[in-house]
Amino acid sequence: MTERVYLDWNATAPLRPAARKAFMSALERVGNPSSVHAEGRAARHLVETAREQVAALLGAPAGAVVFTSGGTEANMLALTPMMGRLKRLLVSAIEHPSVRSGGRFPADQIEEIPVTPDGIVDLAWLKARLEELHGQGEEALVSIMHANNETGVVQPVAAAAEIAHAAAGTLHVDAIQTAGRIPCSIKELGADLLTISGHKLGGPQGSGALVMSSERFALDEPLIKGGGQERGHRAGTENVAAIAGFGAAAQAAGEALAADGARIAALRERLEAGLRELAPSTVIFGAGAERLPNTTLFAVPGLKAETALIALDLAGVSVSSGSACSSGKVAPSHVLAAMGVAPDLAGGAIRVSLGWETRENALAGFLIAWSKVVSRLSKREKTGLAA
Amino acid sequence: MTERVYLDWNATAPLRPAARKAFMSALERVGNPSSVHAEGRAARHLVETAREQVAALLGAPAGAVVFTSGGTEANMLALTPMMGRLKRLLVSAIEHPSVRSGGRFPADQIEEIPVTPDGIVDLAWLKARLEELHGQGEEALVSIMHANNETGVVQPVAAAAEIAHAAAGTLHVDAIQTAGRIPCSIKELGADLLTISGHKLGGPQGSGALVMSSERFALDEPLIKGGGQERGHRAGTENVAAIAGFGAAAQAAGEALAADGARIAALRERLEAGLRELAPSTVIFGAGAERLPNTTLFAVPGLKAETALIALDLAGVSVSSGSACSSGKVAPSHVLAAMGVAPDLAGGAIRVSLGWETRENALAGFLIAWSKVVSRLSKREKTGLAA
Repeated sequence: MTERVYLDWNATAPLRPAARKAFMSALERVGNPSSVHAEGRAARHLVETAREQVAALLGAPAGAVVFTSGGTEANMLALTPMMGRLKRLLVSAIEHPSVRSGGRFPADQIEEIPVTPDGIVDLAWLKARLEELHGQGEEALVSIMHANNETGVVQPVAAAAEIAHAAAGTLHVDAIQTAGRIPCSIKELGADLLTISGHKLGGPQGSGALVMSSERFALDEPLIKGGGQERGHRAGTENVAAIAGFGAAAQAAGEALAADGARIAALRERLEAGLRELAPSTVIFGAGAERLPNTTLFAVPGLKAETALIALDLAGVSVSSGSACSSGKVAPSHVLAAMGVAPDLAGGAIRVSLGWETRENALAGFLIAWSKVVSRLSKREKTGLAA
Repeated sequence: MTERVYLDWNATAPLRPAARKAFMSALERVGNPSSVHAEGRAARHLVETAREQVAALLGAPAGAVVFTSGGTEANMLALTPMMGRLKRLLVSAIEHPSVRSGGRFPADQIEEIPVTPDGIVDLAWLKARLEELHGQGEEALVSIMHANNETGVVQPVAAAAEIAHAAAGTLHVDAIQTAGRIPCSIKELGADLLTISGHKLGGPQGSGALVMSSERFALDEPLIKGGGQERGHRAGTENVAAIAGFGAAAQAAGEALAADGARIAALRERLEAGLRELAPSTVIFGAGAERLPNTTLFAVPGLKAETALIALDLAGVSVSSGSACSSGKVAPSHVLAAMGVAPDLAGGAIRVSLGWETRENALAGFLIAWSKVVSRLSKREKTGLAA
């Protein structure tokens, strides 16, 4: 059996060697960071080292990092009517379900920010709506992702921050897909709150963080209560080994960022050229916008994603149809719907996402498998059968 | 340097070999259980195997296990005004802070169930209060731990379940300290909801579960929203490796339960005999009640816990002063206060907790170190200095 080709890095990524090392080493120790004895203090030290590593990746003060069990929990913690002051939540139409769910805001206080056909948040709409709310004396929490998990389209976060702050609003940024892939400084983005996930950047699953622009940022009451951990923002024994691995992954990702980014972008260029060569009718979503270097979301008219995914999986190639974030079902993409893509075409959307371990031969393996899927389609078209 | 003596198993326990093996093996794979490709399906298989292992330890249906990031999150998920039906939460005065915080109940709907001087929940009080509430048409959620984390005192959970159900109430049991140590069947306990933690039974930190008596149990809206994972009860990518390790630990703990329990109980007997021999004035809290086989909470009048802990730590022995669940500070124990223990004596409380790896020589090491602490105290007493 040949090795499988894994091109679903936006769903989850393998552990980075540095993360594995830190993770394993922490696992060999026993200790609750809240214990005062030597084992407890050693565990505390691992957590605080990781806090500095994660903070460094995001240009944030270490004291402003709150470790959580992952990105979804961090989003849930962030989206809360702070101090009862924020009575309105504006989320973009292309956010991850964990943001679209609105966190702890009641459903009737949540509004959706539309996006352009290129998959970019409509800043003009945002500005007008925030000014309107501000005029009514309402301060809003705005949540816009740094880059979309399906299309990879990078959002104009810094501009959104200016708009939000001018209207006395607060900005939360879901940076789960960008941290460790493109520069991601909380200061340069202008975000007040920022979410990242460990396993998406080569750390262990079960780790994530909500990062604040300042240690003095006033979060509302914690989501998980009953202990003073994480400066009172998140109760529960810290997942020491996962946090240590997360910190090491953040550092490794930061160090490799420029080199990996350029290499992966070049691979992606070749991938997209190959896709267009095999099927000239290929549509690459968000192609006109700035995108993450590692992500391609595309469709070939007439080809259903489900059929293609199964064929690719049998050929040993793992990709996905948009996001893979819940029950294993292939559901229509809310991202493509928001971009105004016709349901038929959206139903064929396939996401290929690369990572630091992806090499030329993986792309070649994918393109060979893909050429077979496409040639089957053209045969069917010639014989007049439905795809 | 000699090896350290770790006797703080109620704070956190080392990984069991079977858990380490399952954990490591899962770490070598990449895959999001929600992905439809082979890697995703393999990850899903690991999660579902672990679900069966955890369910088996607790005599619950596998479909009634909801994996969380740990015990605190599971408690937070459990303590919710279900379907708006439960407007009152009764928690015992000796619960862990994550239960005492009341989860998602407003503060004015939370009441405290008193305990006897032996540290046992006052069932007569509970019965009277529930009947009163029931008479007013109010259904309550009752939360009583299976065994206390500080004293080890086992609570009359099955009797509490009968009382609660007779008054149309619902019972939640925090079994974090008992699962894998003494028999812990959700059916025999009569609990509707039960919390367990992975790292307390030899699994990885970052794993836990809320277990329901039936798959049809209607939980309120999830604590962490935005994905269909865990049958809609808990969104977010599953922590696959930790869950796999947790499952393996649950199975290993279940298999070793009877043998380990007897061996550890014998060790504890010797420990307590030693304590009394070294200082006849030693008070062992909850000694008159049924206790977990691995836990001893004791104090010697005149001896401050903080001083003793530091001296023991320097001597290479790790124990704790009651619980170690939040900010690293030695705070007065709410458990001993609820039992009516005088603050002076409570301020000397030291918890020694054993586990499956604890051997005779660890106890000997502890008793040698302890004898030095005690002899320093008696010298001070002779010379009239304060402890």
